Amino acid sequence: MMILPLFFIFCLFSSSHAAVQDFCVGDLAAPQGPAGYSCKDPSKVTVNDFVFSGLGNPGNTSNLVKAALTPAFAAQFPGVNGLGISLVRLDMAPGGVVPFHTHPGGSEILIVVQGTIFAGFVSLANTVYSKTLNKGDVIVFPQGLLHFQVNAGGTLATAFASFSSQSPGLQIVDYALFANNLPTELVAATTFLDAAQIKKLKGVFGGTG
Amino acid sequence: MMILPLFFIFCLFSSSHAAVQDFCVGDLAAPQGPAGYSCKDPSKVTVNDFVFSGLGNPGNTSNLVKAALTPAFAAQFPGVNGLGISLVRLDMAPGGVVPFHTHPGGSEILIVVQGTIFAGFVSLANTVYSKTLNKGDVIVFPQGLLHFQVNAGGTLATAFASFSSQSPGLQIVDYALFANNLPTELVAATTFLDAAQIKKLKGVFGGTG
Amino acid sequence: MMILPLFFIFCLFSSSHAAVQDFCVGDLAAPQGPAGYSCKDPSKVTVNDFVFSGLGNPGNTSNLVKAALTPAFAAQFPGVNGLGISLVRLDMAPGGVVPFHTHPGGSEILIVVQGTIFAGFVSLANTVYSKTLNKGDVIVFPQGLLHFQVNAGGTLATAFASFSSQSPGLQIVDYALFANNLPTELVAATTFLDAAQIKKLKGVFGGTG
Amino acid sequence: MMILPLFFIFCLFSSSHAAVQDFCVGDLAAPQGPAGYSCKDPSKVTVNDFVFSGLGNPGNTSNLVKAALTPAFAAQFPGVNGLGISLVRLDMAPGGVVPFHTHPGGSEILIVVQGTIFAGFVSLANTVYSKTLNKGDVIVFPQGLLHFQVNAGGTLATAFASFSSQSPGLQIVDYALFANNLPTELVAATTFLDAAQIKKLKGVFGGTG
Amino acid sequence: MMILPLFFIFCLFSSSHAAVQDFCVGDLAAPQGPAGYSCKDPSKVTVNDFVFSGLGNPGNTSNLVKAALTPAFAAQFPGVNGLGISLVRLDMAPGGVVPFHTHPGGSEILIVVQGTIFAGFVSLANTVYSKTLNKGDVIVFPQGLLHFQVNAGGTLATAFASFSSQSPGLQIVDYALFANNLPTELVAATTFLDAAQIKKLKGVFGGTG
Amino acid sequence: MMILPLFFIFCLFSSSHAAVQDFCVGDLAAPQGPAGYSCKDPSKVTVNDFVFSGLGNPGNTSNLVKAALTPAFAAQFPGVNGLGISLVRLDMAPGGVVPFHTHPGGSEILIVVQGTIFAGFVSLANTVYSKTLNKGDVIVFPQGLLHFQVNAGGTLATAFASFSSQSPGLQIVDYALFANNLPTELVAATTFLDAAQIKKLKGVFGGTG
Repeated sequence: MMILPLFFIFCLFSSSHAAVQDFCVGDLAAPQGPAGYSCKDPSKVTVNDFVFSGLGNPGNTSNLVKAALTPAFAAQFPGVNGLGISLVRLDMAPGGVVPFHTHPGGSEILIVVQGTIFAGFVSLANTVYSKTLNKGDVIVFPQGLLHFQVNAGGTLATAFASFSSQSPGLQIVDYALFANNLPTELVAATTFLDAAQIKKLKGVFGGTG
Repeated sequence: MMILPLFFIFCLFSSSHAAVQDFCVGDLAAPQGPAGYSCKDPSKVTVNDFVFSGLGNPGNTSNLVKAALTPAFAAQFPGVNGLGISLVRLDMAPGGVVPFHTHPGGSEILIVVQGTIFAGFVSLANTVYSKTLNKGDVIVFPQGLLHFQVNAGGTLATAFASFSSQSPGLQIVDYALFANNLPTELVAATTFLDAAQIKKLKGVFGGTG
Repeated sequence: MMILPLFFIFCLFSSSHAAVQDFCVGDLAAPQGPAGYSCKDPSKVTVNDFVFSGLGNPGNTSNLVKAALTPAFAAQFPGVNGLGISLVRLDMAPGGVVPFHTHPGGSEILIVVQGTIFAGFVSLANTVYSKTLNKGDVIVFPQGLLHFQVNAGGTLATAFASFSSQSPGLQIVDYALFANNLPTELVAATTFLDAAQIKKLKGVFGGTG
Repeated sequence: MMILPLFFIFCLFSSSHAAVQDFCVGDLAAPQGPAGYSCKDPSKVTVNDFVFSGLGNPGNTSNLVKAALTPAFAAQFPGVNGLGISLVRLDMAPGGVVPFHTHPGGSEILIVVQGTIFAGFVSLANTVYSKTLNKGDVIVFPQGLLHFQVNAGGTLATAFASFSSQSPGLQIVDYALFANNLPTELVAATTFLDAAQIKKLKGVFGGTG
Repeated sequence: MMILPLFFIFCLFSSSHAAVQDFCVGDLAAPQGPAGYSCKDPSKVTVNDFVFSGLGNPGNTSNLVKAALTPAFAAQFPGVNGLGISLVRLDMAPGGVVPFHTHPGGSEILIVVQGTIFAGFVSLANTVYSKTLNKGDVIVFPQGLLHFQVNAGGTLATAFASFSSQSPGLQIVDYALFANNLPTELVAATTFLDAAQIKKLKGVFGGTG
Repeated sequence: MMILPLFFIFCLFSSSHAAVQDFCVGDLAAPQGPAGYSCKDPSKVTVNDFVFSGLGNPGNTSNLVKAALTPAFAAQFPGVNGLGISLVRLDMAPGGVVPFHTHPGGSEILIVVQGTIFAGFVSLANTVYSKTLNKGDVIVFPQGLLHFQVNAGGTLATAFASFSSQSPGLQIVDYALFANNLPTELVAATTFLDAAQIKKLKGVFGGTG
C-alpha cells in the first residue's frame, strides 16, 4: 500500500488551506475591500458558516407596508462572501406591498411559494412589465431597475428572491426621498412633487427638513 | 403644459430601445457568444419573457434516484440571459438523492421549502462540510465544488436553488464517468475503481465500452 | 536590409486583423449580446469611428426642466462599444434641474466646466451626500444610487460626466412612475403618494391610467 | 402613524452600514488588494470623500513637454476606489505634447474643452487612427494601446479624460526606456535605436547606464 | 536642459508607488479577500517576486499514481496574485496518471514538452473529448469540467499547464470521495458505488468511515 | 433496470447542448462581439477543436530579430474562445531578441524550456525588473506593461508563454512607431527621437512618411 507517497505528491495543494481559495467566509470584523469582506481564517470555518437558519419563519408584517424582508446577504450570512449570490425572504400580509425600489448591485430572481403577488418593473424605456404571479411562478428583475411587489390575494404571500451578488443592496425610493434631511424644496425641485405631499411623506417616513 | 419639450430633451435616451441595454432576453435561435445568447428584438419582448411558470409543480421522482431537477436556466428561461442569475427546483421522494455533482459556472444557494435534506460539499482541502437542513434552512455551495443532496426525512423534500450564473451547468460524476463511451480500462486507470464496478455502473447509467 | 523576413515572423499577428481584438466598434444594425453590439468589420473602421463631435454645443434647455443631456453612449458613439467607458454632456439653464435618477449600469464621475451645480446622491443607508460644485470641481456617484443635479447659480451651468460602462442607462424616477400606463392606484400603493398628486404628474410627464 | 414599525422591518438593511456595500472610499493607509484599497470606515465618510477639487486650474506647463497631467485617480481621489472610473485634466501650452504612452488598466475617453489637439492611437495591426480635435470633440483610446496628444493650435489646449478604471496607470515610453538604469546596450538591442540616441535621451530623461 | 521640470509634471504619477496598481505581489501573511491576497509593500518588491524557479526539475513520481504535479499558483508564487494567470508542471512516469479532477477556478491550457500523453475531458452533455498528444501538442480544458491525463508512452512524459486564474484550485474526485470521513453509506448513496469498493478505496486514499 | 427514467429526469440538461455553455469554440467566420467570437454549432465540435498542433517545432528565426513567435490565440486556436487563456511559443536563435512590447489584453507567464533568456519589464514607476532565466525558470509580466526578452546564451532558446486572455494582443513599440505612415515630425515630437534616427528605423521596419 502506498498511501503516503500518493498523499505527498499532492501535498502542495492540500497541506495548507492557504494554497487554495475555494471560499472566503467573510470576517465581518476585518476591513472590507471593493470585492467584499476579508476571509475568515479557514482553519476556523465550520459547516455553520455555510448554513443560514434565519429564513424559516415569516417576518413580522405588523407595520405600515404590511410586509417584511428578511435578508441573507453577506452581512447576515458571511458564507456567501465572494460567491456572488444571496437570498432574501419576502412576506406580505393581505394588503402588503414592497414599494418601488432598486438593487444597485445585482439582478433578482423571485419565486412565489405561497399566495399571489402582483409584481413588475419599469425598463429604461419606461415600459412597465408586470404580471400576477401565483405559487411556483418566477419573475426576474434586471439589475438596478425600479420594481415593486404587491400582495394580490387575500392571504399571506411569501416569496424567495435571489440576487447575482452577495451584497445587492436595497434602495427604496420613499426612504431615499423622505426618510432623511433633504430639504423639502430640494425634493420638490428634483421630483416635481408638491411641497405638501413631500412634507406629508416626510412625516410618514421620519424625514426632516 | 410643456410635455413635448420635456420629452424631447431626453429623447436620445428613450426614442429607441437600442440606446439602452437594461436586459437582453435570449434569442435561442440566434448564435451564442461567450457571454450568452444574442438579444431578442426588444420591440418583441413582453412580460412573459421575464416570467417562468415551470416550477410550480413537483418534478417526476419515479426514477432510480427518486429525485427531479427542474431548471430555469437561460436555455429554459431566456429572460435571465445576461443577468447572471438562474433558478432550479429540486424534488426528492423519500430515499431520493442528487448524486455528487458540480456546477462549473456558478455558486449555488439552496433553501429547503418542504421536508428535510442532508446536504454537503467537499472543499479543495478535501474537508466535508455537511448538515441536515429543515424547512427554511439555507446552504451555499461554492462554485465548482463537488456536492450532494439526500432526502433525510420520510416525506417529499423540496428546495429551490439559485445560481450566480444564467447558465451554471451541471456535471454529475456518475454520468460523466458511466454514461458515455469511455473505455472501462481508462475509467479504471483514472478513478482507481475496479473494472467490475465500472461495468456495473455503465449498465445502470447507459454507458458503453 | 531584411524588412520582409522581419515582417514574416510576426505576420500571424499582423496579417489579419481578425487575429486581434483591440477594439470592437459597434455595428448597430447587427444583433446585440449581453456584452454589447457585434463588432463592425475592422477593415471598414476609420478614425471617425473613434471620434464623436456631438458634444461641442449646449443642448436645448428650453423645456420644463431647463436642462439638456446629450449622450455619447455606445448607441450614439459605437466606438466605445466593449470598452467600458462613455460620456455625456449636461447643460442646465438658470433654474435647471436633472430630477432624481439612476444609472443602473455604471458609476459616474462628473466635472463642472461652467457655472455652479448643487449635486448629491442618497446612499443605501439613506444618507444624503450633497455639495455645491464650482467650475473644476468633480463628484462621483456610485453605481445605481439615486442622485440629482441642480443649477445653483444664475448662469448656464455645464458639466461632462463619464461612466464606467459604454451603456450605463438612465432611469429618471419621474418618468418611470408618471410617463407610462401604470394605474394610479398601483402607483399610490407602491409610492405612498396621493392619487391627486400622481394624476397631476401623469399629466406633466404624459402618462395615462 | 406607524413610523417605527415601518422602520423596523427594513432595519436589517439600514441599521448598520456594514450591511451594504454601495461604495468603498479608499483608506490609503490600509493594505491594498488586487481589487483596490480597503474601505474607509463608512461612519467617517463625508461628502468631501466624493468630491475632488484639484482639477479647477491648469497644471504648470513650464517644462520640456509644455504639458501637464493632473490626475484624479484612486490614489488622489479615494472616493472612486472600487467604482471603476477616474478622471485626469490635461493642459498643453502651444507646442505642448503628451509623448507616446499607454494606460495598462483601462480605456480612455477624452473631450477637448479648450483649444485644438491632434491626437491618435496605433492599433495592434499597427494602423494609425489620428485626427485634429476641436473644442467639444471626443476621442476614445482602447485599453493598453499606444497613443499621443499634441497641441495643434497656438493657444493653451485643455481636455478632460476619463478612464474605465479607478487606477488606469500611465506608462510613457520615453520614461520607461530612458528614465532608469537599463543599460544602453540592452535598450539598443530591444529597440533598434542607436546607442548615441539612447544616451542622449537618457540625458534628457534622467536615466543612467 | 530641463530634466527636473519634466520630472515634476508627471510626479503625481511616479513619486509614490501607491499611486498605481500595476501589480500586487501577494503578502501570504496578511488577510486574503475574495480577489486574492493583500499586496506586499511595493517598496520591498524585487525581481525575485516575479520569478519562480521551482519548475526546473521533474517532480517525484515514485508514488501510486506515478505522477507529480508541481504548482506555481499564487500560494507558491505570490507574484501572480491578482494577475489571473498561473502555471503547473506535470510529470508522469510510464504508467503514470492524473486521475479525474477539476479546477473550479479556471480554464487550463496544457502543452506536452516530452513524451506522449492521452488526455481528455467530459462535457456537460457527457460527451468525451480525448486525444493522444505528442510533444508540442496543446489541449484546452474548459473551466470546471472533469478531465484526466495518462502517460501513453513508455518514457517520462512532461507537460506545462497554465490556468486563467492565479488560484484555479484542484479537486481530484478520488480524494474528495475517499480521503476524508464521509460515511461509506453516504458515499454509496451519492455515487451508486458498492460499499466494498468504497471501503477499498478509502483504504487506498486514507479515508475513514 | 431503470435506465430510461433516470435519463429522463435530467434530460432537460442533457437533451440539447444548447442548454449548457461549458465551452464556445469560436466560429471565425461569424461576427465577433466584445466577449469574443460567436460559438461554433456544438453538434459540429470535435476533439480537434480543443487540440492545437502548431507549437511542436521551432519557428523560423532567420530574420532580423533572430526570433520567432508562434501564437495559439483564439484566432489560431478557436477552442480557447471565451475561456480566458492562450499560449505562444517563443524561439530565439543566438543573438535573438523580442523587442520591447506589450500585451494590452492580458498578463503573461513564461517558462524557459531550453537555453537561457534575459527578460524583464518596466513598472509604472519606471523601475526595471529583469533577470537571467535558465531552463525551468518562470517569470510573470503584469498586464499591459512594457517588457522584452533576449537570448542570453549561445544556443537556441525556447519558451512557452501563457496569457490571461484568449486574445491578449501584441504591440511592439518599434512596429507601432516605425512600420506605418506616422509622419517623421510627429514621431519626433511624441518620442523625442531625432528625425534621422526615425527615418533610419522607418527604413528597417517598412514605414513611410
